[in-house]
Amino acid sequence: MNGNGDRHDSTLVLLSGGLDSTVLATELVRRGAAVQAVSVHYGQRHAVELEAAAVVASRLGIPHDIIDLSVLRHHLRSALTGTGEIPHGHYAADTMSATVVPNRNAIMLMVACGVASARGLRVVATAVHSGDHPIYPDCRPEFIAAATLTAMLGTETVRVEAPYIRLTKAEIAAKGVQFDAPMELSWSCYEGGDSTGRHCGRCGTCVERAEAFHLAGVRDPTDYADTAFWREQVTV
Amino acid sequence: MNGNGDRHDSTLVLLSGGLDSTVLATELVRRGAAVQAVSVHYGQRHAVELEAAAVVASRLGIPHDIIDLSVLRHHLRSALTGTGEIPHGHYAADTMSATVVPNRNAIMLMVACGVASARGLRVVATAVHSGDHPIYPDCRPEFIAAATLTAMLGTETVRVEAPYIRLTKAEIAAKGVQFDAPMELSWSCYEGGDSTGRHCGRCGTCVERAEAFHLAGVRDPTDYADTAFWREQVTV
Repeated sequence: MNGNGDRHDSTLVLLSGGLDSTVLATELVRRGAAVQAVSVHYGQRHAVELEAAAVVASRLGIPHDIIDLSVLRHHLRSALTGTGEIPHGHYAADTMSATVVPNRNAIMLMVACGVASARGLRVVATAVHSGDHPIYPDCRPEFIAAATLTAMLGTETVRVEAPYIRLTKAEIAAKGVQFDAPMELSWSCYEGGDSTGRHCGRCGTCVERAEAFHLAGVRDPTDYADTAFWREQVTV
Repeated sequence: MNGNGDRHDSTLVLLSGGLDSTVLATELVRRGAAVQAVSVHYGQRHAVELEAAAVVASRLGIPHDIIDLSVLRHHLRSALTGTGEIPHGHYAADTMSATVVPNRNAIMLMVACGVASARGLRVVATAVHSGDHPIYPDCRPEFIAAATLTAMLGTETVRVEAPYIRLTKAEIAAKGVQFDAPMELSWSCYEGGDSTGRHCGRCGTCVERAEAFHLAGVRDPTDYADTAFWREQVTV
């Protein structure tokens, strides 16, 4: 973003279908950028967040493609992509480290930068935020700095931007209200939802999501199967 | 490599099936490293080099996996992955820039680093060399430096090594003799060979390969369909 808040370079946004990237894509669109979206199927067990991404992109009126790298499931084993139990509880707890997919963000960013280069786009935008830092090394500011250097040297034209890197998820939820993001269409639940299509309300990302709306003082549009669990996990 | 030429960290080598990575994998094995190999199918038009990689790995007695990311063919269009003509002539000529797959090396390296991390390996080795620099930005020393920084920050354990980064392809061919690499099993031809399975002898990588053996003063074990063409392209 430049000084007056507008963007001039065409942007490919990594749209997971989650809350953060839904808000980011919306903010970019509202600011008048030429935005395209891409989702990467990296072998996560549930496709529901990819479906959410398609719905969000449609609502925003931006092109959207899903790149199916689900074969990586066989090569990058973790709780998210294998058959292990998804840990319940607070997102920041040690148990969530079992959800780490090795180098996932680096892979997605470099693929997106290749796609952006092929399309003549100058920016890849990712919605990583400060809440990701304790668990995911490839969401930290120093990683993003290295990744954009790698992309610039590798493509000669494409840079990586992570405008939410210093924000909390609560601040992102507040931005979502500010920019009228279709947050109700976004998907966070690592469990893939219950049998009625609701967020479970118990997995780490459900707890993190509910907490973010609470801390932001924003109405949570999410339909949780378990509406009470998250409050027991939140310590602030 | 440390001072005495031995390696202590287990290494995942990116084995394309070409000459350079065949020699690198061999050198690592001969030096006593614990080596595994991985090939990435990124959507190249011909699978023959992947078959060569499997044969080379078998000869060296190292584990080998192919990661099929050929879906990227649809997203990263270039002459190598599309239906355009492969340019003939010298590898270093401007026409070869049509063979650039945007950010290919970054994608392959980050995938390999994820695989290495999942397997507890500390090093990803790539056989990029100085002859790649003029055409492929993601084969240059500064790119490799950025990529290893990105990998270290993204995985916390895996680094990228490119021990041939300052070597010419001729120097690699000489190393191949020194370490008794099965160079005759490697594959370079971008055309996928002629109907009898021979290297065409006319595409950029065939010319580069023949030139390298010539400059190294090493017998070329390759069976070219056109044995004369490359000499007309070589200016040194």
